[in-house]
Amino acid sequence: MNHSLDALFKPSSVALIGASAKEYSIGNVIIKNLIHYGYKGKIFPVNPKEKSILGLKTFRSVSEIKESIDLVHIIIPPLSVPKEVENCGKKGVKVIIINSAGFKEMGKKGGKIEAEFLAKAKKYNIRILGPNCQGIINSDPAVKAYCNFTFSYFKPGHISVVAQSGGVGQIITQALHDKGTGIRLYASNGNASDISITEIIRYYGKDKNTRVILLCIESIADSKEFVDAVKEVVKVKPVLAISSGSTEKGAEASRSHTGGLASGKFMETMFEKTGILFFNSLDDICNAAIAFSTQPVPKGNRIGIITNTGGPAIIATDELVKNGMIIPSLTDKIKKQLAKHLLTASSISNPLDILATADALHFKKAIKIMVNEPEIDCIYITFVTPLFVDCVSVAKEIETISKAYKKTIVCNLITDKKVWKDTVDELYKGGVPIYNFPETAAKVLSAMVKYNELRNRAKGSVIQFTGIKKNTVKKILTKAKSQKRNVLNASEVFEILKAYHIPVAECYLVVNEKEVIKAAEKIGYPVVIKADSRNIVHKSDKGGVVLNLNNVKEVVTAIRKIMEKLASRDLKFFVQKQLPSGKEIIIGAKAEPGNGHLIMFGMGGVLVDLYKDFALELSPVTDAEANRMIAKTKASVLFNDYRGMPGINKHVVLEIIQRISQLVCDFPMIKELDMNPIIADSKKAVVVDARIICS
Amino acid sequence: MNHSLDALFKPSSVALIGASAKEYSIGNVIIKNLIHYGYKGKIFPVNPKEKSILGLKTFRSVSEIKESIDLVHIIIPPLSVPKEVENCGKKGVKVIIINSAGFKEMGKKGGKIEAEFLAKAKKYNIRILGPNCQGIINSDPAVKAYCNFTFSYFKPGHISVVAQSGGVGQIITQALHDKGTGIRLYASNGNASDISITEIIRYYGKDKNTRVILLCIESIADSKEFVDAVKEVVKVKPVLAISSGSTEKGAEASRSHTGGLASGKFMETMFEKTGILFFNSLDDICNAAIAFSTQPVPKGNRIGIITNTGGPAIIATDELVKNGMIIPSLTDKIKKQLAKHLLTASSISNPLDILATADALHFKKAIKIMVNEPEIDCIYITFVTPLFVDCVSVAKEIETISKAYKKTIVCNLITDKKVWKDTVDELYKGGVPIYNFPETAAKVLSAMVKYNELRNRAKGSVIQFTGIKKNTVKKILTKAKSQKRNVLNASEVFEILKAYHIPVAECYLVVNEKEVIKAAEKIGYPVVIKADSRNIVHKSDKGGVVLNLNNVKEVVTAIRKIMEKLASRDLKFFVQKQLPSGKEIIIGAKAEPGNGHLIMFGMGGVLVDLYKDFALELSPVTDAEANRMIAKTKASVLFNDYRGMPGINKHVVLEIIQRISQLVCDFPMIKELDMNPIIADSKKAVVVDARIICS
Repeated sequence: MNHSLDALFKPSSVALIGASAKEYSIGNVIIKNLIHYGYKGKIFPVNPKEKSILGLKTFRSVSEIKESIDLVHIIIPPLSVPKEVENCGKKGVKVIIINSAGFKEMGKKGGKIEAEFLAKAKKYNIRILGPNCQGIINSDPAVKAYCNFTFSYFKPGHISVVAQSGGVGQIITQALHDKGTGIRLYASNGNASDISITEIIRYYGKDKNTRVILLCIESIADSKEFVDAVKEVVKVKPVLAISSGSTEKGAEASRSHTGGLASGKFMETMFEKTGILFFNSLDDICNAAIAFSTQPVPKGNRIGIITNTGGPAIIATDELVKNGMIIPSLTDKIKKQLAKHLLTASSISNPLDILATADALHFKKAIKIMVNEPEIDCIYITFVTPLFVDCVSVAKEIETISKAYKKTIVCNLITDKKVWKDTVDELYKGGVPIYNFPETAAKVLSAMVKYNELRNRAKGSVIQFTGIKKNTVKKILTKAKSQKRNVLNASEVFEILKAYHIPVAECYLVVNEKEVIKAAEKIGYPVVIKADSRNIVHKSDKGGVVLNLNNVKEVVTAIRKIMEKLASRDLKFFVQKQLPSGKEIIIGAKAEPGNGHLIMFGMGGVLVDLYKDFALELSPVTDAEANRMIAKTKASVLFNDYRGMPGINKHVVLEIIQRISQLVCDFPMIKELDMNPIIADSKKAVVVDARIICS
Repeated sequence: MNHSLDALFKPSSVALIGASAKEYSIGNVIIKNLIHYGYKGKIFPVNPKEKSILGLKTFRSVSEIKESIDLVHIIIPPLSVPKEVENCGKKGVKVIIINSAGFKEMGKKGGKIEAEFLAKAKKYNIRILGPNCQGIINSDPAVKAYCNFTFSYFKPGHISVVAQSGGVGQIITQALHDKGTGIRLYASNGNASDISITEIIRYYGKDKNTRVILLCIESIADSKEFVDAVKEVVKVKPVLAISSGSTEKGAEASRSHTGGLASGKFMETMFEKTGILFFNSLDDICNAAIAFSTQPVPKGNRIGIITNTGGPAIIATDELVKNGMIIPSLTDKIKKQLAKHLLTASSISNPLDILATADALHFKKAIKIMVNEPEIDCIYITFVTPLFVDCVSVAKEIETISKAYKKTIVCNLITDKKVWKDTVDELYKGGVPIYNFPETAAKVLSAMVKYNELRNRAKGSVIQFTGIKKNTVKKILTKAKSQKRNVLNASEVFEILKAYHIPVAECYLVVNEKEVIKAAEKIGYPVVIKADSRNIVHKSDKGGVVLNLNNVKEVVTAIRKIMEKLASRDLKFFVQKQLPSGKEIIIGAKAEPGNGHLIMFGMGGVLVDLYKDFALELSPVTDAEANRMIAKTKASVLFNDYRGMPGINKHVVLEIIQRISQLVCDFPMIKELDMNPIIADSKKAVVVDARIICS
């Protein structure tokens, strides 16, 4: 079966509409790149004014070319693009890369042209990459297609890259090349008018020689298709991702705690749900990709450290321990084995220092004994190349072991890579990833262990709670919408929560002193009074919340004070049972238009404000995911008895998280939802204050 | 004046006792290194068995050498070292590098030999580097001394490195070389039996061609001399430091919160006090050193970003904002100026995207306008080298501006450094630091801004509080010592605190039910009762603390329960006033033997346990330092009124921090001190519970 993207990544011929004889032009650079990179197919420059470009015969138009054409580059002004797409269709072209800019990204007018050429492409069953994009690269020696105007000529490898931003893609391909690693496929699809990132990842997933996929993406319009497709891909190979622009995204205005804290976190959360390993730095993702492309994913987090110099191993240990890795002590049996084969002054423990004077045989014995130890999951090596050791032989031993065993090995190689080129080459040959710094090698190993955990975590299932009063919620939301109110009032919010069986503190919304007293007597003292008004957002900051009122006198004083401070026409009073103290938690939701909701769990009060101790999941939240949300917060220890304090009933909190997930899935128009605080103790969790904002 | 280390770093002649003809030996490698690096002085191999080594005439002993000798390498077994030091003394040698190992680091026997050769060195006024060390390197073209057995041959530059661990030193020199940067001086002093890191830093401080000092150090025996000396050096040039092994250090057992949290933090805290910029990663410190060696320290944190490609600038912005940098909006005046000179589709804001097609003139205009803007302190540039732009000309413009203006410029250069070698060389020529990744360039700029803040912060002064009852404390400590009690009992601790005028909650230590009741009546209800016993460390975990007792009946119930749970022969009861609730803070101290105490401030209770929200300073703490301790915690916002909660009286907390500093300075035998919690509100701060452990 011919995959529809084969013509893009393995074109047997490439034509360029807008080929140019001008040296510093894209229409010239792409031809140069194709020739320089050794493209195995045929190149057809299309240019009505020139006879030949860079030694290649030119054509007046695509229709003039007799042979069949797989791929066409279009590098001409936007207005002429639809007509050329039509011409390509008539000619039977399979794929077009539109490098030209000036379409949707420039506004309405450009968008119209984009729609026009897309219609034509559809008519002729042509696939489009771009517009406003770089193109693709395939390093396969049988193809060698450099259909791109950039400058990183990389060698064949097993990492395939797809980048939304061409600039970031360029940094990655160049960095991997600088680090001595090859790349398999590359694509940057610009405006993504037709061929999507999702489709490209799916293609990479099926490409046998791609062992790891590296994804750079800033935003996504509809994550559902992406998540579903990539979930299949991660079953067969690791996908690593980076997403820039969180500052920008974080700048969105939001009107709730959840809204503020979840801003800019969508991509990261969505990646994790999908099983994609997320990175915060370009250097880190490149370093990790190198190891993923040649080494197996480790089975656990127990690291054996072997070094021929002390200081760097200490640095590696620091980094590994910081990342939650275990450096197990060696058994006496292993210690005896090692002592028998190593230099006398060696430090026989983990880290194992075999000394700078250790030769190939010492390295071989040390690594083999460690690799064969079932209590060790992966091997970290620091290898400094001393002037008094035959280093190539050492490298050969590491290479041999790396090939023969299925345990992950990464190496911090301290050397001058030019002078010790042979040593470096041996390690490359064995697929041993090498890094200049001990921290880097340690970070990479930690990332691989984390990926193993990500891959093997429980998926869980989405529980559908029954007995929900969906109609009650619908009515409230419809009424608010008809009244053009985005912010629901307190009693509406509590009604909605109750409809989803979320426990709330007994409460009444009333309008005057007399009613407040009546409500307080009904609830029973002590009570809390909270001001309720559309105009007041942070009630407690403004004296709108009075706690611990024990009798009528205190109640009256309190509401008079509130009225004095917060004179507002729509001022109402929310009377609530004062709960005995417990731990304050916060659970909320924030809509990601087109992509469901982010659900948040965190510790409430000052804790969430100052320490940002919270976790997010993308809706719908499974039971296993809800569990992980709690586990991810530092405050998760408080769910058990902690330093004399009773714990929190985890079960009820988990249920609230999942019920909120169900609520926002049922009603996507809920833009932001905050339950803050929820007072939780060892028995129950009760919502004391909540907000809902609709779109 | 001849500095005493001149003979070490600028030797006019080098002899090697233990020179060897064997290829893979240190006694051979050092000669090879001296020759290969182009040493300008004379080399005298000493070896009684060989006639010549590597073409150099050998000598039977140093006494046989007729010419004067500045520097001698000793590379022979430990036992023969003292005799050879004596011979060197007779010959008039100035400095010896003892590369051999097998001294103090191997235990008592080796330590004895070390003492022996040191005595001889002192007798002849010889300085010693090592033993068990690499040696030094001086890249000055007039010297070219490679007195070291390692392999990184670097070019002349302005960064001088001193490393305790030779392996880490090697990583740094090689990394700087790989990154295309030169180094000035290098030293690794191993056991540091004579010439200390402090002395080397002082020497680097006076070396005109050293612009920045890079220090790698794991531990320090006596920090006072170090701090005093380096404080002088940082007045004239930046000192950057890294210290590995925090995991190991953190493993120390400690018996208090402060002890646990401060473990492994001494070096970092000491560096900051001294004005040294601390780094957590080798890559980060190398990258920063490069910029410090050629660019001025920025005057502020307002960054102007110029780019010719979008994606990387977004990544840089994220990183800069995360590090507290400001990306100011451009004024309309500047915008107009820029629009006049740049390409039409440029994005005229900050970040300023001048497009991939921007040429040298566009770059020149953009950078010049930004550099001349007084609201911008430093410039970040992302420069991707497109195939369709004359990039050397662009680099020339950046170079010219970098040389002409005193504003910091760093550059994220995205290129193939081999193909664009001319472009790279131009930037080097202009002293423009270049980095492959946008995050890296942004991190470097942030580190430089942080250094500016460090350099300009208020030093403050150490307040000597008067009216202190030192004698009271002395008596208590002497008595405890005589009774071999390390852990003071609660009333002793409170007595000590009161002697230093630290406010404590009214309390009594009593032994039986009757006395408890008497104490409670005297204090007035509500009271707290706490069990006090040498055998109970975490009282509250074990039911040894009962709060909020309102009458005799409750008191009796409480102490009976305690007696039931914590049967212990020395069980006493600590009766204390129950304070109205406030914020819990923790202040403490931990001795660093030989180096004073670490003083800690943090938020108490769960906050310090879970979120590690605390700050440390080295004693004696100045008023300005105490202020910064509070400011460094996230909870510092709670000192002001925060979300409806009243703030904390900062003045009284500051005073407690400084009084504790004075206490532990006066009594260095205090090993650990914890005041946890201190209940603080807008008026006062009162110590409720405290521990003191003596050495």
